[in-house]
Amino acid sequence: PGRVSVAAVLPAGGSGERLGGATPKQFCAVQGRPLVSYAVRAMERIRWISDIVVVVSPDNIRTMKTIIEKYGHKRVVVVEGGITRHRSIFNGLKVFAEKEFSRHPLQKPEVVIIHDAVRPFVEEDILSKVVMAAKERGAAGAIRPLVSTVVASAADGCLDHSLERARYRASEMPQAFLFDIIYEAYQQCTDYDLDYGTECLHLALKYCKTNAKLIEGTADLWKVTYKRDLYAAESIIKDNLSQEVRVITDVKETVAPIGFLLSESLESQIKVEAVSISQSKNDSHLQNILSGQCYNFVCVNDKKCVIQETQQLVDMLEKSDVPLLYPVVLIAVHLDISENNSFSIGIEELASIKKFAREMKKKNILVYGLLIQYK
Amino acid sequence: PGRVSVAAVLPAGGSGERLGGATPKQFCAVQGRPLVSYAVRAMERIRWISDIVVVVSPDNIRTMKTIIEKYGHKRVVVVEGGITRHRSIFNGLKVFAEKEFSRHPLQKPEVVIIHDAVRPFVEEDILSKVVMAAKERGAAGAIRPLVSTVVASAADGCLDHSLERARYRASEMPQAFLFDIIYEAYQQCTDYDLDYGTECLHLALKYCKTNAKLIEGTADLWKVTYKRDLYAAESIIKDNLSQEVRVITDVKETVAPIGFLLSESLESQIKVEAVSISQSKNDSHLQNILSGQCYNFVCVNDKKCVIQETQQLVDMLEKSDVPLLYPVVLIAVHLDISENNSFSIGIEELASIKKFAREMKKKNILVYGLLIQYK
Repeated sequence: PGRVSVAAVLPAGGSGERLGGATPKQFCAVQGRPLVSYAVRAMERIRWISDIVVVVSPDNIRTMKTIIEKYGHKRVVVVEGGITRHRSIFNGLKVFAEKEFSRHPLQKPEVVIIHDAVRPFVEEDILSKVVMAAKERGAAGAIRPLVSTVVASAADGCLDHSLERARYRASEMPQAFLFDIIYEAYQQCTDYDLDYGTECLHLALKYCKTNAKLIEGTADLWKVTYKRDLYAAESIIKDNLSQEVRVITDVKETVAPIGFLLSESLESQIKVEAVSISQSKNDSHLQNILSGQCYNFVCVNDKKCVIQETQQLVDMLEKSDVPLLYPVVLIAVHLDISENNSFSIGIEELASIKKFAREMKKKNILVYGLLIQYK
Repeated sequence: PGRVSVAAVLPAGGSGERLGGATPKQFCAVQGRPLVSYAVRAMERIRWISDIVVVVSPDNIRTMKTIIEKYGHKRVVVVEGGITRHRSIFNGLKVFAEKEFSRHPLQKPEVVIIHDAVRPFVEEDILSKVVMAAKERGAAGAIRPLVSTVVASAADGCLDHSLERARYRASEMPQAFLFDIIYEAYQQCTDYDLDYGTECLHLALKYCKTNAKLIEGTADLWKVTYKRDLYAAESIIKDNLSQEVRVITDVKETVAPIGFLLSESLESQIKVEAVSISQSKNDSHLQNILSGQCYNFVCVNDKKCVIQETQQLVDMLEKSDVPLLYPVVLIAVHLDISENNSFSIGIEELASIKKFAREMKKKNILVYGLLIQYK
């Protein structure tokens, strides 16, 4: 969003009581990686978010720092939370405002995003919308239609009244605020608010007379609350990883139709995009192709210089920021079209491909090699 | 619930718009079986529910009848729904009340349960609670704490006010009503109610002055609404199938400690209950052991009559109704403790075990055989 400075605060201090497990849900592993890491990545890949403040309970500061190191998160500051959600968010905001209390003085942003560590699937589009609306109106938040009717109970545990579902919405995250407004609201609010409230939009309204703009979000903004939500997150991540593949080839169809046959046979099962390098005018065209939301690549070539070409593609993938969020799978298929019976690639070259793959794994890019004798 | 006659109506007419797929969610396959079949099974295994009325859209009547046949559902009547949820439920209720209009006249129950086809995990405990409360008060429904704050928006799309989360609850299913009350409410309600309303508790309050008893339900009452919920349902079903195993053995520990070693080594990973047939006083004691919520059995024996003993266990499992809800896995381990080098079981017997397993599969019991030479 153009000329507005933006930072993000991610409260990650919840104890996860509703999950029924010992590990707070933001630290539960989903496909081997803690949930909070997905939320951080989702923020981190947005270039216009300058700083990401993750607020965790004192017990989990060390855990969080290990996660940041392990998954190579950047622009992240860990802050100690309070005993309630509002107190934790307030602590997160203080890092920008009270330089004397903070070991990590950060530039105060014009707009601050507040997002939950347990909502891993936030997209740039909704973040951009809440930020722009907050700049204009002071506050904004994502909403969703209610899934169930909401009822009020009387003192005897019986139905008092039910709300007309169409008139109400579920308040979700992300939310965004002019920093000065939300910070002012937190400074003014009572201990009761800090201890029992949960809704930042409410504080902005109550203490700064700011009626937040409500923005309809997508279904993927939901919050991981119960164990079933962890299951769902796991499946969605698997799905994201597997639903699309790009087949890249520099082999002429007349020489070896295998790259084209592969695309055709895959198409019955998943979304396939075939890319011909020889038809790509230049590197920046290819860079654009690689930068989209795709995590699976098959590269077919018949040149001798397998590593060199694979390295070139990996470089482009790295630049694209794609591997930040999920692992990228790159299958390098080398077609040996020589007339010899022996392979044209030597043991040494195979060893260096293996070494290359090991290095790439650290960058969240999984490289596999496939050598096919093709006549 | 003692002396009250109970029937159930399952609205399954939704179009599943929120799921973003062509198949309505109640007919989506979860572990190979349509979601609605799980909800029907959950009702069907409750012996005190006499009839189960499933209301589906005209397009899906044939599909629903095929499902009933394929999965062997009993006590189920399929009824054609209306264009909204309330009209569908009303159609379901009419089957009990308006004999002249119905091709399936059913005995009018004292209490009727209304439950969604897209809530597959309802347990006897909550069904029993809502039925008893409905008998006493006329109406009752399961509720859950709100996951998100509920907000009301003003005409300009901005926040008007947010509800204090602790004072409100999400209204879930199952609900139960004295039949005469809910039927009266549906007869009196307006076209507007029938077209735009969704909440049965609201109708009972508005037209019959009946304040429903609200009963806190468990987290598994949630409604499959989005694709992520299908993923979650799939994982929960897998989890249910795998989290507990009973190891049954009639082999004396002194002869072959393998049954006992198996229990010990499994215990580090899942919940294991070891059952010794020789210590079970009689069949009814064993029957009780087999009747619990367990779907995985390993039977270790060293007798010649493998099939006979397996058959006996399968008979007990069938009587227990356990295989109605999920498939039961029974691994029959035959220990060959003879001194011969050849197996004491012949090809013929192996063939008949295979045939037996094929037959049992139709009854939702998966029988596997394992032959171990043990010295």
